[in-house]
Amino acid sequence: MSDLREALLRDLPDIRLLTAPAELEHYGRDWTRRWNPAPLAIALPADTSEVQQLVRWAARHQVCVVPSGGRTGLSGGAVAAHGELVISLDRMRQVLAFDAAARLLTVQPGLPLQAVHEAAAGHGLIYPVDFAARGSCSIGGNIATNAGGIRVIRYGNTREWVAGLKVVTAKGELLDLNRGLVKNSSGYDLRHLMIGSEGTLGIVVEATLRLTDPPPPSQVMLLALPDMAALMQVFELFQHRLPLQAFEFFTDVALRHVLAHGASRALDGDYPYYAVCEFDAATEAAEEVALQAFEKAMEQGWLLDGVLAQSEAQAAALWRLREGITESLAPYQPYKNDVSVRISAVPAFLADMQDLLGREYPHIEVVWFGHIGDGNLHINVLRPADMAAEDFIGQCERVTKLLAATLQRHGGSISAEHGIGLVKRDYLGSTRSAAEIALMQGIRRAFDPDGLLNPGKLF
Amino acid sequence: MSDLREALLRDLPDIRLLTAPAELEHYGRDWTRRWNPAPLAIALPADTSEVQQLVRWAARHQVCVVPSGGRTGLSGGAVAAHGELVISLDRMRQVLAFDAAARLLTVQPGLPLQAVHEAAAGHGLIYPVDFAARGSCSIGGNIATNAGGIRVIRYGNTREWVAGLKVVTAKGELLDLNRGLVKNSSGYDLRHLMIGSEGTLGIVVEATLRLTDPPPPSQVMLLALPDMAALMQVFELFQHRLPLQAFEFFTDVALRHVLAHGASRALDGDYPYYAVCEFDAATEAAEEVALQAFEKAMEQGWLLDGVLAQSEAQAAALWRLREGITESLAPYQPYKNDVSVRISAVPAFLADMQDLLGREYPHIEVVWFGHIGDGNLHINVLRPADMAAEDFIGQCERVTKLLAATLQRHGGSISAEHGIGLVKRDYLGSTRSAAEIALMQGIRRAFDPDGLLNPGKLF
Repeated sequence: MSDLREALLRDLPDIRLLTAPAELEHYGRDWTRRWNPAPLAIALPADTSEVQQLVRWAARHQVCVVPSGGRTGLSGGAVAAHGELVISLDRMRQVLAFDAAARLLTVQPGLPLQAVHEAAAGHGLIYPVDFAARGSCSIGGNIATNAGGIRVIRYGNTREWVAGLKVVTAKGELLDLNRGLVKNSSGYDLRHLMIGSEGTLGIVVEATLRLTDPPPPSQVMLLALPDMAALMQVFELFQHRLPLQAFEFFTDVALRHVLAHGASRALDGDYPYYAVCEFDAATEAAEEVALQAFEKAMEQGWLLDGVLAQSEAQAAALWRLREGITESLAPYQPYKNDVSVRISAVPAFLADMQDLLGREYPHIEVVWFGHIGDGNLHINVLRPADMAAEDFIGQCERVTKLLAATLQRHGGSISAEHGIGLVKRDYLGSTRSAAEIALMQGIRRAFDPDGLLNPGKLF
Repeated sequence: MSDLREALLRDLPDIRLLTAPAELEHYGRDWTRRWNPAPLAIALPADTSEVQQLVRWAARHQVCVVPSGGRTGLSGGAVAAHGELVISLDRMRQVLAFDAAARLLTVQPGLPLQAVHEAAAGHGLIYPVDFAARGSCSIGGNIATNAGGIRVIRYGNTREWVAGLKVVTAKGELLDLNRGLVKNSSGYDLRHLMIGSEGTLGIVVEATLRLTDPPPPSQVMLLALPDMAALMQVFELFQHRLPLQAFEFFTDVALRHVLAHGASRALDGDYPYYAVCEFDAATEAAEEVALQAFEKAMEQGWLLDGVLAQSEAQAAALWRLREGITESLAPYQPYKNDVSVRISAVPAFLADMQDLLGREYPHIEVVWFGHIGDGNLHINVLRPADMAAEDFIGQCERVTKLLAATLQRHGGSISAEHGIGLVKRDYLGSTRSAAEIALMQGIRRAFDPDGLLNPGKLF
C-alpha cells in the first residue's frame, strides 16, 4: 500500500493529497459507523482535469476509487475500507453559471445543497429538493442517490431537477450529458442512468440544475392523530383540498426523543401520531379552506388536536419537531431502514410492518417517521445500552431480512432515498429481480470493465 | 424466408399472424416513406405471455424483431425492411387498472394516446402529454421515443409521467420496473433507460402512468409577430406573467399550407410569424393580466396583431392553425428535421439556421414551426414536384449534415422528440460524443447480445 501511495505522490505531485491517519479516517467513512475506514489516500482535486488525471492513474494501477461528497449518506455508499483512493469533491464547490432564459444553474458537485438553495434564491428562484442534511450534504451526493426529502409530493426527487451532467468515466473520459436541453430524444438517457448510480458508473464533476418559481407564501400546521388509519384519511382529505408542499409524520416515540434533544413542545397533550403539514396559503381564502379541512377532520375523529403556526419562528419550531428526529437519535447509533411502498399500499404494509417490528423487537425501541405522501417510511432501531454493537446489528439484519420479504409482498422498495451502498446490498433482491440485477451488472461492466468505481457498493 | 415463416406458424399456432403482402406492407412501415417494407410476418400477440413466446421463438431462430405501435413515427423506428418479425401491440390496448390513492393508470402499450386521455378524464384527472397524432399513436410508441408535444413547457415529456413499466427483454424475460413507486433508490433506474430507447432494449408490454389534476380553465390566443426576435421577447414576457400551458409558433409559409388544407383564417392581415398561446385563466383577473401583457407587447412593437378566442370552438380553430400543419404538408412527403437547443441558445441558433436554409435550399420551400418554450423547432423541407425523390433526399441529407454541425456548435440535439430511428442515425454523433455512443453500444449488448431487437435503429 505504501508503495502505491508513494507512486501517487510522485506521479501526480500537483494534486492535493491527504494521508494522515485522522484524515484517512475522516474521509473514509460516511454517517454509517459500521466499517473501519482504510483508504489508500484522499485526493482533493481542484477541477475536472484533476479528477480525470486521478481516475486515469487509478486505472493504470488498478486501484479502486471511492467518489466522495458530503458523506452524510446512511448506506455506506462513500465508505472506503479496503485501500481505495478516495476522490473527494470537497474543493469543487463553485457556482459556475446561471442561464436566466432557461432557468438553469450550473454547479460543481461539492457544493452543499444549502448553497444551491442560496444561489437559486439570489436569482429569485428555488431549487426545490430539500431535506434536513442540507447544510452538510453535497449536490453530487444528492445526484448519486437521487435524493428525495420533504418536498417530494410537490416537486419530485433530485432526478426531476437535473438538466445536464458532466461525468468522468472509469476510463477518465469526460461525458457531457444532455447539456440542459428540455427535449432530446437522441438515444439512451445516460444522465438518468447516472442519477442514483451511487458512484459506480462515473464521477459527477458538474451538474446543471433546473430552477423554478418560489411557491406562494405557505402555512405550517402540526396535527395530532389517533392512529395510522386516521393519518391516511387526513392525508387524502388535505391532498384533495390543499396545495400541499409537504406532509410528514412521526410517532409519539420520535417526539419524545426530539423534545429531549431540546425542541419545544407545541401541543399540551400527548398523542400517538403527529403530522407536520405545509401548504400554499397566499390568501385568507386559502387559509379558510385549510381551517375547514381541519375542522372536518376533527369532526370525523381523524384529528385529536392541532396548531397552525402564527409566525415564521413558530413554523420553524414545528418543522424542528420533524427535522430534528434524526439528529436526536444519532447518539443511539440507530440501525436504519428507509423503505417505500405505493401510497395505496401504505395501510396494508403498515399493518404487517407494525406486527413484524412488535414481534421481532420486543425489548428494543423502534422510532419511525416519514413522508406519508410518497409512501416512504424511516424506521430507526435504537441499540439498547447493554447490547454489544455486533449482536445488535446481527439482530437488526435478521429483522431486515423479514422486513424485505414483507416489502416484496407489498411491491415496495428496500431503499426509498438513501441508496443501497453496503448496508442494503444483501437485500437488493427483494426490490429488484434477478433479471434486473443481471442487467445492472452488465451495464456496470460496460461502464467500468475493471470494476474500479466504488466496488462492493450496490451489488 | 418462407421456411422461417412456416416454422413460426407451426411453432406458435395460437398466436395471430398476418402474412398477406398488403398486411406486410401496412405493418412494415411508419409515417416515413423511404424504405420498402419487407417483414417476415406480423404477429399480433393478445397478451404479455404471447409477446414472450414470440421473442423466445425469434431468439431461438435468430430472427430480428421490430416492436410496433401506432407507426406514426417520423424517424423510421418502426420500419421492418429486412425480413424482421414485426410484433405489433395493436391488440394489447386495454386499460388494466386505476389506483385512486396513488393516481396511477395502468395500461397496455397499444392503447392510443387519446384513449389514455379519455381514461384519465373518466377519473376526473388528466394525462398531460399531448400532440397532434394523439388519435393514432400508441402509448407504447410514446414511451419508446420519450414523446414530447405541445404541453412540455408545463408538464415535461413522457418520461416525467411513467411510474412503472413492464418490459419483455430480448431473452423473453419479463421485467417489472419501478412498480409505481414515488421513491425508489435501489440501483440503476432501468425504467428511465427504457424510455426513449426506441425498442432496442426491450418491448414495453404494460405502463403505469401518473395522472394529475386538470389545469384551471384556459384561454387561447393567436399572436402575429414581425420577427423571431420579437417572438423571443413575447415568450419571455408571457412566461413571466402568465401560467402558460403551451406556446407554439409557426411561419407565414406554414399558415398558407394549413389554410389551403381547409383551416379558417383568424386574422385579417398577413404577417411573417404567428404563435398560439394557451394559459390558465380561471378568473377575470387572470384574463386582465393577459390583456395587459398583450398590450405591452403591442406597444413595444413585438406584436402586430392578435386575437383571444371567445369560445371553445374558436379556441379549437386557433389550435388547428398550428396542429394542422403536419397533415397539410403530408402530400409533399416532406423531409423532416426535428431539432432542439437550449431556450437561451434559440436566437443565435435561429440566425445560423435561417442563414443555412436560405443558402442551401434556394429553390425549395422550407416550412418551419415548433415549440419555442422548450427550444424545439420542426423544419419541413417540401419536395418540388419536378424533383426525383432520390435526388431530393440526397440534397436534404447533405443539408442535414450541415444543420447537424450547426446544432453541435450551439449544443443542440438532432432529435428533440421524434427519436433517431433510421433517419437520424448518421447524425447521432453530432449530439452524442463517441464515448457516449460506445457506452450506449455496451448497454445494448448487455440487454441484447445477439442484436435481435430493432437492429439498425439508433446506431
